[in-house]
Amino acid sequence: MRILWINPIGYEGFNEDTLKILNEVRSAGTQVDLVSLPSDRPQHLQYHSYGGLVIADIVRLTYQAAKEYDGVVIGCFYDPGLREAREVSGRAVVTAPCESSTAIASMLGNTFSVLVSSRKNIAKMRENIGIYGHNHRLASIRSIGVEVLQLQADRGYTSQRLLFEGQKAIDEDGAEVLILGCSAIYGFYQEMQNRLGVPVIDSVLAPFKYAEFLAGLANSFGWYPSRILGSEPPPEKEVANWGYFDHPTS
Amino acid sequence: MRILWINPIGYEGFNEDTLKILNEVRSAGTQVDLVSLPSDRPQHLQYHSYGGLVIADIVRLTYQAAKEYDGVVIGCFYDPGLREAREVSGRAVVTAPCESSTAIASMLGNTFSVLVSSRKNIAKMRENIGIYGHNHRLASIRSIGVEVLQLQADRGYTSQRLLFEGQKAIDEDGAEVLILGCSAIYGFYQEMQNRLGVPVIDSVLAPFKYAEFLAGLANSFGWYPSRILGSEPPPEKEVANWGYFDHPTS
Amino acid sequence: MRILWINPIGYEGFNEDTLKILNEVRSAGTQVDLVSLPSDRPQHLQYHSYGGLVIADIVRLTYQAAKEYDGVVIGCFYDPGLREAREVSGRAVVTAPCESSTAIASMLGNTFSVLVSSRKNIAKMRENIGIYGHNHRLASIRSIGVEVLQLQADRGYTSQRLLFEGQKAIDEDGAEVLILGCSAIYGFYQEMQNRLGVPVIDSVLAPFKYAEFLAGLANSFGWYPSRILGSEPPPEKEVANWGYFDHPTS
Amino acid sequence: MRILWINPIGYEGFNEDTLKILNEVRSAGTQVDLVSLPSDRPQHLQYHSYGGLVIADIVRLTYQAAKEYDGVVIGCFYDPGLREAREVSGRAVVTAPCESSTAIASMLGNTFSVLVSSRKNIAKMRENIGIYGHNHRLASIRSIGVEVLQLQADRGYTSQRLLFEGQKAIDEDGAEVLILGCSAIYGFYQEMQNRLGVPVIDSVLAPFKYAEFLAGLANSFGWYPSRILGSEPPPEKEVANWGYFDHPTS
Amino acid sequence: MRILWINPIGYEGFNEDTLKILNEVRSAGTQVDLVSLPSDRPQHLQYHSYGGLVIADIVRLTYQAAKEYDGVVIGCFYDPGLREAREVSGRAVVTAPCESSTAIASMLGNTFSVLVSSRKNIAKMRENIGIYGHNHRLASIRSIGVEVLQLQADRGYTSQRLLFEGQKAIDEDGAEVLILGCSAIYGFYQEMQNRLGVPVIDSVLAPFKYAEFLAGLANSFGWYPSRILGSEPPPEKEVANWGYFDHPTS
Amino acid sequence: MRILWINPIGYEGFNEDTLKILNEVRSAGTQVDLVSLPSDRPQHLQYHSYGGLVIADIVRLTYQAAKEYDGVVIGCFYDPGLREAREVSGRAVVTAPCESSTAIASMLGNTFSVLVSSRKNIAKMRENIGIYGHNHRLASIRSIGVEVLQLQADRGYTSQRLLFEGQKAIDEDGAEVLILGCSAIYGFYQEMQNRLGVPVIDSVLAPFKYAEFLAGLANSFGWYPSRILGSEPPPEKEVANWGYFDHPTS
Repeated sequence: MRILWINPIGYEGFNEDTLKILNEVRSAGTQVDLVSLPSDRPQHLQYHSYGGLVIADIVRLTYQAAKEYDGVVIGCFYDPGLREAREVSGRAVVTAPCESSTAIASMLGNTFSVLVSSRKNIAKMRENIGIYGHNHRLASIRSIGVEVLQLQADRGYTSQRLLFEGQKAIDEDGAEVLILGCSAIYGFYQEMQNRLGVPVIDSVLAPFKYAEFLAGLANSFGWYPSRILGSEPPPEKEVANWGYFDHPTS
Repeated sequence: MRILWINPIGYEGFNEDTLKILNEVRSAGTQVDLVSLPSDRPQHLQYHSYGGLVIADIVRLTYQAAKEYDGVVIGCFYDPGLREAREVSGRAVVTAPCESSTAIASMLGNTFSVLVSSRKNIAKMRENIGIYGHNHRLASIRSIGVEVLQLQADRGYTSQRLLFEGQKAIDEDGAEVLILGCSAIYGFYQEMQNRLGVPVIDSVLAPFKYAEFLAGLANSFGWYPSRILGSEPPPEKEVANWGYFDHPTS
Repeated sequence: MRILWINPIGYEGFNEDTLKILNEVRSAGTQVDLVSLPSDRPQHLQYHSYGGLVIADIVRLTYQAAKEYDGVVIGCFYDPGLREAREVSGRAVVTAPCESSTAIASMLGNTFSVLVSSRKNIAKMRENIGIYGHNHRLASIRSIGVEVLQLQADRGYTSQRLLFEGQKAIDEDGAEVLILGCSAIYGFYQEMQNRLGVPVIDSVLAPFKYAEFLAGLANSFGWYPSRILGSEPPPEKEVANWGYFDHPTS
Repeated sequence: MRILWINPIGYEGFNEDTLKILNEVRSAGTQVDLVSLPSDRPQHLQYHSYGGLVIADIVRLTYQAAKEYDGVVIGCFYDPGLREAREVSGRAVVTAPCESSTAIASMLGNTFSVLVSSRKNIAKMRENIGIYGHNHRLASIRSIGVEVLQLQADRGYTSQRLLFEGQKAIDEDGAEVLILGCSAIYGFYQEMQNRLGVPVIDSVLAPFKYAEFLAGLANSFGWYPSRILGSEPPPEKEVANWGYFDHPTS
Repeated sequence: MRILWINPIGYEGFNEDTLKILNEVRSAGTQVDLVSLPSDRPQHLQYHSYGGLVIADIVRLTYQAAKEYDGVVIGCFYDPGLREAREVSGRAVVTAPCESSTAIASMLGNTFSVLVSSRKNIAKMRENIGIYGHNHRLASIRSIGVEVLQLQADRGYTSQRLLFEGQKAIDEDGAEVLILGCSAIYGFYQEMQNRLGVPVIDSVLAPFKYAEFLAGLANSFGWYPSRILGSEPPPEKEVANWGYFDHPTS
Repeated sequence: MRILWINPIGYEGFNEDTLKILNEVRSAGTQVDLVSLPSDRPQHLQYHSYGGLVIADIVRLTYQAAKEYDGVVIGCFYDPGLREAREVSGRAVVTAPCESSTAIASMLGNTFSVLVSSRKNIAKMRENIGIYGHNHRLASIRSIGVEVLQLQADRGYTSQRLLFEGQKAIDEDGAEVLILGCSAIYGFYQEMQNRLGVPVIDSVLAPFKYAEFLAGLANSFGWYPSRILGSEPPPEKEVANWGYFDHPTS
């Protein structure tokens, strides 16, 4: 099985760490590749307009990947382009951090809180969690107030903020599970669950393992993505003639 | 007041008609411009992946327009890029057909139905209408089964299909108002409301007049878009340094 | 275009100010009239029972106005009699502060808070906001604890309370937009938005401009209120025979 | 215990039947009175504007009744003035047909349908049922197409229509319980439940017995209506000074 | 009329008090019996797994009671086995504390809070209240932090905690009505409502009086539980052959 | 990894088939056991009361299994005892067909329909799907009208009914994915998806593979079920003293 992780930003700083993590946790028989975007793309996606600049890349990469990969992961907790990429993924599954993390959390406890980088993130992520059907489980979304590109730069501070807001999510908001709401908040979940005593879902691991899981179901049982009605892809002929998805990612 | 209409497709065939309509209905004192996209962009946006290919264009056009225009309209009933464009519109308002049409319809009757080009449209449009808060008013979404680029080509057939499904929406689904769910279904509403006896919201007129309305409120009362929390734009300095929104639309 | 503002109370103290404001903000070509109720009617509508005493007046005034006016505004943030008046407004549109303000706010930010006179207001206004479809955007309803008839009497205190609770709505509740939830809280929005940095919707201006907007759509495009199913009016003959709406307003 | 039934219309034609029914079903120890409105009031409340004309009557009658009665029933399935009357009912409880019937039906089956006189009724009644919290139980609202004043005039036809639409509600909509959605559809429930094999809630009996029930709880346990926050009544002094509720019902 | 109260625990400590209360408040003509479970059953039902151990008992007791009783009450605020017992209650009604208390509270005020023994209770009770349709009325669920078997042991402390959290529910959460969310919190409501000035629903009284009420409706009007579709009971023949409900309660 | 499948019925007729299927699809390294209940337990769980008779068994089996197994599957599409069993599963995960199937379906299409054995199933399954957060994706629940114990007896008829209702779910209800809503409807999904062209989720495979998936996450990342607040298990000491979960399954 082959999985492609897309870091949908024009910044390579997380690539090595992410790929290392994925290789540590992949199932036997899974091959992982990782791609990020050309350097003229936004270096982070905190702003929705930045996200808008890279959806075409995500769509094209997914379309092309569908020929060789069993699964594609969009590595940003806003889940940018998830609907758009799924439409052209053929038989490959597409996952993304918020959808996968909340699906897993929903089976580990009654309620969860999401810890995010910034108050900026809250409105859109709340909307997504509602679309995914988990509003009634959402105890809170709490900001730790650390910019994306600083999350790994001062890991001690990030960790301290995560523990502080995580504890408050449990005590004041009634969260039974925590979710780390940014794919750059990797490498923290284990200490957190040791210290806080609740499962802490890491948003690199969750969508990657979910992609392996769904791709396995597809391969074994033919549970490929639906391709009718709202999930109907563009006609192959039109796509071929117009060449919309052939351009290099730039 | 200046309003920019974006036809977010690489097809110019609707431009002349649309601009003519807008000039006929604009308020005294409103100036209208219209822009469509380079010809290598999708010619229609029926597929979400196609929509994904043009969001960067919509964002950049809006960012640039914000310096000169009071309002921007995204001319597609999927409302593609609405959240993303609004983030960088500065003091300009941004509207889109589905949001505007449903807002107006919600004050003209208890319930409405949307007539769309294809069953493909239904799932995503239903999701949007839910996000806008009108699920409890949505009587039905009915497909007329006419491809976007055919809507104006055989107007007689389009009209017949709209009347047929519109009548069923009233009789079987309990719709009190109808909405024409594609910005290429222009030029039909008047005959329809004469024949069917209910208001029929045209999705070119609705977002354009709503843009004039909101821009007027902004100019008169300072009710500009909020720029805090989830509506915070990217930092000017970062935008300037990285030049993300400066590229030509291509 | 002619718009009638109904101050649905038996107190004339706000009439002059309100009419002055409306005349300042009306569009060229709009004529405004204002009517309040006989002096044996309640002087304020804080209590639902008081509101119940004046719905017949609102209905009759609207029915009569429909012959001459293009739009009617019910000037109380409980939106009393909105459904009832709309039924008999013929081709005239009817608006009211809560519905109009929340519709506008929903396009200026992700979330809003409403500042009200008293905790008494909260339950019913929350119910209305839910009916209008904006529950998911409602950050909070906060009481400033100033009685309706005192709101303009000690403007300094009212202003201080509005600024205090408005700031808390932003900081603690995550509001991106504020709404002033009483049509007697006029004349405060500008200073508030200067000080707080978010749009502050005034509930005199919002329904009045919304009435102009909808009446304009009706006049230009024939988008009159639906008159079928749940929006069907009483039969003209029955109304004429029984004379229910002919009585003077008393 | 004393219960007052308000027939909130200016038509006496149902009074005798209704009072007879109430006396047949009242508990030992309950005294029933019935009042309808002066003859210049609407003879039926099919239209919301008609309902608006009588809310003041309902409020005043309730305010006055609160001194002598333990419970008040508002005899119309639109539940007109329920919130307004409850505010001034003091220690007396106030009930109404739609609220009571749906509360009872919710404990007799998973789902219910409401049979109403006209398609006119559907939108507002659906809204009320949502406010009461039963949207997820509402299988359908079906119109029998018989005008209110004809319901008792041709009982054979009414019965036939009720049986026909009731059977369809069961078979096609999945209703486990039926509710007769007009207080003039009395005298039909027994035959219907014999023929259809499901409980059929009569909207005269339901709110009357519910009023007895709630008044009994109030008398025995002090579970009087809450009088704080959104349920706070107007100040006694203001009410006395202004005399709003003293006028005769006209 | 005969009502059976089931204390669904293997602990007899509450039986005498409960039966005494029921006999004090029963209507003339009502006979009450009370049964608890064999002593090897859980002594309290704080844990869902404990509740799972007694559902078979509740089902069998209800099935057997249906031959002699008009109503059955399941005496635990988790309402365990309510759906299961209702299926086999024949013509007898089945009630339970949370459903009954919230139904009553919904007519006494706009909002309510529930005071529970432990934070453990909150998630499941919130889910139930949502199923019953009252999420929009739920101001809060507050834990008093007193174990079930201690609630009556140190009544002074229990009372103090109830008053403290009840006051906070009113002041901070906006509750207009309070509900005591455990059938072992009996004997406190009167002092609480005297001190706090709002109705306080006792969860022994509420479901018992509701059972009398519903059984009375069934006896008078034939409003027995629906027995079709999702409320269809198992076939009598199958039940008889297999003898599933004949076993003694153990 | 060890997974226990519980067939929560006193009927062994499905055991061999189910175990064979599980062994065919288990991952390398997974060991599967299957247990059904003593023969005096219900032979099917179509009725909620029957389900109530076996929840104690499910709880005890899960409690005991938690010492040796990594995951437990409750093999009935009503998901009986899911909440109760999860509370005492320690570090083992617990899954069930409806929850797992709908979670998977939600990522393969916008909407799904569930095909069930009988109209009896619909109300409770709809409630569960709502609790899981998928109401907005539920196109319909359709009954094939075949009793549970007949599903495998006349496979030709079952298949024909599944194909017929599945096609209608797609064409009339707009389902993009189908779910087979009974764990006795095994062995049909492949032909169905070949014939109907949409993914068809089998409710034996879905919860089993989901159990493997979640157990894998638990083992690899420590994402064990939360054990706080609403997910807090009974105290070990109390469980040990009282021995509630030690009894043999009978």
